[in-house]
Amino acid sequence: MALAFDEKDLFACCGSTRFAAEMAKASPFPSLEAAVSAARDVWFDRVDVSGWLEAFSAHPQIGETKPAAPGKSDTSAQWSKGEQSTALSTATGSSLQELSDWNVQYKQKFGFIFIICASGRTSPEILAELKKRYSNRPIEEFQIAAEEQMKIIELRLAKLFSAKEHMTSTGDQ
Amino acid sequence: MALAFDEKDLFACCGSTRFAAEMAKASPFPSLEAAVSAARDVWFDRVDVSGWLEAFSAHPQIGETKPAAPGKSDTSAQWSKGEQSTALSTATGSSLQELSDWNVQYKQKFGFIFIICASGRTSPEILAELKKRYSNRPIEEFQIAAEEQMKIIELRLAKLFSAKEHMTSTGDQ
Repeated sequence: MALAFDEKDLFACCGSTRFAAEMAKASPFPSLEAAVSAARDVWFDRVDVSGWLEAFSAHPQIGETKPAAPGKSDTSAQWSKGEQSTALSTATGSSLQELSDWNVQYKQKFGFIFIICASGRTSPEILAELKKRYSNRPIEEFQIAAEEQMKIIELRLAKLFSAKEHMTSTGDQ
Repeated sequence: MALAFDEKDLFACCGSTRFAAEMAKASPFPSLEAAVSAARDVWFDRVDVSGWLEAFSAHPQIGETKPAAPGKSDTSAQWSKGEQSTALSTATGSSLQELSDWNVQYKQKFGFIFIICASGRTSPEILAELKKRYSNRPIEEFQIAAEEQMKIIELRLAKLFSAKEHMTSTGDQ
């Protein structure tokens, strides 16, 4: 059965307005695979570089789990918290401080926050990755961040699908 | 003899504030080659993606030669006019219209204006290039635009050098 999503659902998957609008137009999707394939096309081929920056800015900084800012998605903020649960449970006060310091340096160099698909990754792993990626050229790092964003989109589309399927099956009883 | 440039000179070469600031710090330059090599390093390794967008927005649209907007560089506006002289002398009314229409479409897709080192290129050549590049993915096109911007920087640094050398030799008499 095809599942339909609105722009608000899709904006929670990826905070680019163009992404949400194009994906809502392509909805409903016959399967998760079809949604992921459409998302890949929209994210890499249709969202422009400003849209990438817009989507990056919708994330909290790694190591932080603030509530959503005004105009940002509540669902996205909750998902970020879940995606960072391994990182947060493996972090100590001093490692969170080091992560925060490196985040500041990273943002100074690249102009956007460090984007990583944090799901299942420990705090030391994330810090090591940040330090490694810090030496990249801005354009290389921009593309790596976009690839990580795509991994986050895939995870979140899967969450959307299972939530909708659950709602539908509950409604059928 | 080493030639020194200030931020205003360098901002006319490339409308990214970080580019102008970093190059001014690296000035004076013992030769044009040294300046181009420093510019290459600053443009590709230190200016972030927002700085690339900032620099692109400092150019007039190809086929247009408006005076500089407030806060933009007068020198840059004059140089643009010179760089587009071949294009303008080979353009007819209808080809300028077609170029203008394609520019609109291009900006809609990519979010920034079409950047090309126009020097010595005719209007039909530029239009053909625009049409060809239009099919690229946003990230590919972003990198091509940055390469074209680097060619423009090289040409403009050469102009700065010859203007300063002329001033210096005149001052010596």
